Amino acid sequence: MAQNSIDSLIQTLSRLPGLGPRSGRRLSLFLLKRKDTILDALITILQDAKENIKVCEVCGNIDMQSPCSICEDSARDKETLCIIQDVADLWAIERSKQYKGQYRVLGGLLSAIEGMGPEELGFEAIKKRIMDEEIKEVILALPLTVEGQTTNHYLQEMFEEIDGVKITTLAHGVPVGGELDYLDDATIKTAISARRIV
Amino acid sequence: MAQNSIDSLIQTLSRLPGLGPRSGRRLSLFLLKRKDTILDALITILQDAKENIKVCEVCGNIDMQSPCSICEDSARDKETLCIIQDVADLWAIERSKQYKGQYRVLGGLLSAIEGMGPEELGFEAIKKRIMDEEIKEVILALPLTVEGQTTNHYLQEMFEEIDGVKITTLAHGVPVGGELDYLDDATIKTAISARRIV
Repeated sequence: MAQNSIDSLIQTLSRLPGLGPRSGRRLSLFLLKRKDTILDALITILQDAKENIKVCEVCGNIDMQSPCSICEDSARDKETLCIIQDVADLWAIERSKQYKGQYRVLGGLLSAIEGMGPEELGFEAIKKRIMDEEIKEVILALPLTVEGQTTNHYLQEMFEEIDGVKITTLAHGVPVGGELDYLDDATIKTAISARRIV
Repeated sequence: MAQNSIDSLIQTLSRLPGLGPRSGRRLSLFLLKRKDTILDALITILQDAKENIKVCEVCGNIDMQSPCSICEDSARDKETLCIIQDVADLWAIERSKQYKGQYRVLGGLLSAIEGMGPEELGFEAIKKRIMDEEIKEVILALPLTVEGQTTNHYLQEMFEEIDGVKITTLAHGVPVGGELDYLDDATIKTAISARRIV
């Protein structure tokens, strides 16, 4: 049977999201049989990712540069800000090609259990950004879960105090309890097109 | 949207067996958020595997040493040889803890389409080993597919010429068309216990 290096490899791969003991073994064997091609390429790409990928200081996106290429893109609408929970949601919205504004990744939702309050999520900084950059529309694209909607309402009340800001939310079409990253692009597209004022 | 390093990472992970575009994205993000912990550990383990894992020159197993720990283990039965298609099958049989003999991993099956003949699979070397090491029993544990059974019959005829060798095959219990690595350990255990002379 396999020993230390092989066992460590199988165990590490088995614990990654989406993999289990059997797929971990299969993947380990697949890589070990292709040591000089795919395994070698994978190591290089992981190292490259580790060294070069940064979190954008403006929006929280992951990119090769900070500020990220979306924040730096002068062709994008500077007056619309979309607030999402996670980078995966940002990627999902970008894939729909329906949105050309700015983003803010919260990295979490209001949750007493997880110790996530308005301070941890940087709500004041977002409010300041909306005022400083004269944002005209804030799209709240948080998940339709209890925590997502609590955060939604909190942000809505907070941003309504700012003059001249329209607050919108994604249209019906996003299933209740669903997460953006799991939706098909067409649904996200429809939801962005039909966004409504809250 | 993401750029070169991120795209390469997602594409590489998406193409691994058991993963697809969505799980590739999820896994990329999971690793990028844990750059200094899980990603770092994964790189180390992959590098370690790349540098230290060898193919056993005797049996074709994958191990930290060659000959591998199974071939080197003096407590194992030296008079029984089990012939399997793949390292994954060897692992599956080892997990059943029912077999304590030697192995030979073919690394393929007779196949005109894939250009795999008796020479490519090293059948003569296996025959020589059986004679030199005075093997008393050869267990043919190849898959019950068309190619597996063709190979089975070929090897059976070849080894029957050797004096004093009993040729056995795994018992009923292995589903037709199934692969050893996908079976539960109990089925493999039963199949090894009830192996029969062909």
